[in-house]
Amino acid sequence: MQLGRHISGQFNTELEAIRTHVLTMGGMVEQQLTYALEALHNHDAELAKRVMHEDHKVNAMEVAIDEACTRIIAKRQPTASDLRLVMAIIKTITDLERIGDVASQIAKVSLENFTNKQHSLLVSLESLGRQSVKMMHTVLDAYARMDVKAATEAYKFDDKIDAEYEAVVRQLMTYMMEDPSSIPSVMKVMWAARAIERVGDRCQNICEYIIYFVKGKDVRHIGDQNIDDVIK
Amino acid sequence: MQLGRHISGQFNTELEAIRTHVLTMGGMVEQQLTYALEALHNHDAELAKRVMHEDHKVNAMEVAIDEACTRIIAKRQPTASDLRLVMAIIKTITDLERIGDVASQIAKVSLENFTNKQHSLLVSLESLGRQSVKMMHTVLDAYARMDVKAATEAYKFDDKIDAEYEAVVRQLMTYMMEDPSSIPSVMKVMWAARAIERVGDRCQNICEYIIYFVKGKDVRHIGDQNIDDVIK
Repeated sequence: MQLGRHISGQFNTELEAIRTHVLTMGGMVEQQLTYALEALHNHDAELAKRVMHEDHKVNAMEVAIDEACTRIIAKRQPTASDLRLVMAIIKTITDLERIGDVASQIAKVSLENFTNKQHSLLVSLESLGRQSVKMMHTVLDAYARMDVKAATEAYKFDDKIDAEYEAVVRQLMTYMMEDPSSIPSVMKVMWAARAIERVGDRCQNICEYIIYFVKGKDVRHIGDQNIDDVIK
Repeated sequence: MQLGRHISGQFNTELEAIRTHVLTMGGMVEQQLTYALEALHNHDAELAKRVMHEDHKVNAMEVAIDEACTRIIAKRQPTASDLRLVMAIIKTITDLERIGDVASQIAKVSLENFTNKQHSLLVSLESLGRQSVKMMHTVLDAYARMDVKAATEAYKFDDKIDAEYEAVVRQLMTYMMEDPSSIPSVMKVMWAARAIERVGDRCQNICEYIIYFVKGKDVRHIGDQNIDDVIK
């Protein structure tokens, strides 16, 4: 870690507090996502409603951390890696907040009145959901340690999520073609699948911020293949 | 405008240059979106390919502006409204870049081989697309003048886009139910509709940053109804 080397102990404490706050937010969002998938799986309306109700806490954390970052820039005038850390945090919380929105979206879908037969479609989301939670967990872990290697590996995990997502979409389309009357319901599952797939993209963004902080290099838009070269 | 009151004329010039760069980026993204919709409408493969090819320019602008913002923070240590401006810019360019991605997505859909009958479905996207370009134009205009009133009005325009989007989705679902063999093609149109709808959300984000800069208030997550109270 690059922290712990400031003349001002107070500055250290403040930066570390923000970082901890981000990890708490990340943990909460991961929890929300896990609960939402659980609600979908068990058709648990109570749990789904709780996820939707708790979303405002995630939003409030985003706003609070954003404010803390602006305050620390104004007060401490960070440069170099301190400034990169603050910048990385500002961007990370946007993605975390959006993953929180995804959890709410999934929870909402779980409240739909699916027929028993249609309900079986939700099973196809399970594995996809599990993968996205797994990726998120790995990314948050890499974030906690600011571990570039772990971030790069987690980054590539999105390929698996994309492949699984494509399979789910094909399956859902087949279902719709076989039973056109199911289309409105299946479309809801389709949106949920899409939302889960987007979690992987958000996690990739967070990986990019980790690399940016540690390496000082902006690896957005350079393509998956080139990331390995950059972090060498 | 809050600019033009710094002791350092150089600082002014730098801030103004970044702001101009953002407007250039916004103009370019608006152009990309317009071209993508045109490609969809006229089934113009050349234009679609150009949009997809030019996307990297939008990405490069995002990275360049981001760097300029980090540099100005490190060098000029802005506070108060100057810092808010920089923060607003950092967030704005993320949304602009994503709207650029939407343009690419739409362009890609226009390259699909639709049957003549299916091609007529694309017409349903036209009005939705026009609305999103209109909203974007209004938001960029509010941004150029940092006009809170205009931003608030533009913000509410998203309701129209949402309503139009819902109508398009219903229409596409009906089409799929009547002709299940069309499902794979229609789903592509569905994704494009979703992408266009998201432009409205991105534009709303930019409106929130304008309000944040001018009023110093974070209006994210407070609900449409409350924004009027905040900006009073």
